[in-house]
Amino acid sequence: MNDPNRRTLGASVPNDRVEIVVEVVLSAPQPGSLVSIRLPSVRLNFGGIPGDRHHGLTMRSNSRDAKVYARDTEIRNRRQLTIVSAEECADVARRLRLDRIEPEWLGANALVSGYPHLSRMPAGTRIMFPSGAGLLCEGENLPCRYPGEVIQELHPGARGLVRAFVREAYGRRGVAASVERPGEIRAGDRACVIPVPAYATIT
Amino acid sequence: MNDPNRRTLGASVPNDRVEIVVEVVLSAPQPGSLVSIRLPSVRLNFGGIPGDRHHGLTMRSNSRDAKVYARDTEIRNRRQLTIVSAEECADVARRLRLDRIEPEWLGANALVSGYPHLSRMPAGTRIMFPSGAGLLCEGENLPCRYPGEVIQELHPGARGLVRAFVREAYGRRGVAASVERPGEIRAGDRACVIPVPAYATIT
Repeated sequence: MNDPNRRTLGASVPNDRVEIVVEVVLSAPQPGSLVSIRLPSVRLNFGGIPGDRHHGLTMRSNSRDAKVYARDTEIRNRRQLTIVSAEECADVARRLRLDRIEPEWLGANALVSGYPHLSRMPAGTRIMFPSGAGLLCEGENLPCRYPGEVIQELHPGARGLVRAFVREAYGRRGVAASVERPGEIRAGDRACVIPVPAYATIT
Repeated sequence: MNDPNRRTLGASVPNDRVEIVVEVVLSAPQPGSLVSIRLPSVRLNFGGIPGDRHHGLTMRSNSRDAKVYARDTEIRNRRQLTIVSAEECADVARRLRLDRIEPEWLGANALVSGYPHLSRMPAGTRIMFPSGAGLLCEGENLPCRYPGEVIQELHPGARGLVRAFVREAYGRRGVAASVERPGEIRAGDRACVIPVPAYATIT
């Protein structure tokens, strides 16, 4: 671990940090509804946001994991939080001919700005907050029809929004994340994105 | 989640599974020594291998995490197990002009064959075992000097093996992994490697 070669070898790996702004912080407290509500801040533990419907060190596998695990298998919870970007939400809204997409309609736990293609953030990327809290990006969150149903219900004058949402939000629905280090996330935080080196080297 | 588009959209993502063989299973039970010992099998829980020095849902950060966390911070444990490949170990041995590199000298928990460039296995790749146990690749494991010291001690006739190990094992020292689903891993298991889709999409 006191490896004289490491610094030299590591020097060729880009490790530029990017600052993002936490515009909105939310939690989804109702087990039966994906819709989240805005909060001034949330305090993370190793399971995510206590009281949130996705909180837990483990979870029951669902259809998202069907290629790997039988449904209802207890597996590690990599979907503790979901994060969406202001830039991608604006893009999805434009594609759906809506004024806006609000993060609560997507059940998001955070809306951030400054990382336009958030959905392409590589797994293993760290997001570090001023409190010391650290999140690990677990990869892109694929859209399902449920947020589309919320959006359709809120826009009764429009048609076909459920299927259109799934189609247009593909690759623009943000990422799932899990807690590497507990702490607080506050609306207005400036957070630091630490890229994963090539091949996701464990630093 | 009942998304009719998903199968179609996902169809362009390669998802070929590869079979590997678990040649050796090991655990490192001594807190003060990295050297692991061979076992017929190990039984994983969500913290890794109970009794192993790297077992735990969380760990204290060390110099590997120094760019991100102050030393001794409690963070999630992504280094529950380490896995090395027979092909890469043979390559490192050849580069060090040794007959062989044994997995116990590296403190590995498994030696596998059939995935020659294991160290380049992308983070998020799953390794599924016949028992139903599932591991998540957490990325490349960078070499430090401690296995080099073990190797040097075992080869008193050779010189400079500590530094040479770090240099030659770079990119060939295997990966760290964590438990997604508990279960047993047995020597002789044929395991299935499920690649992570592009951009580490959460399936």
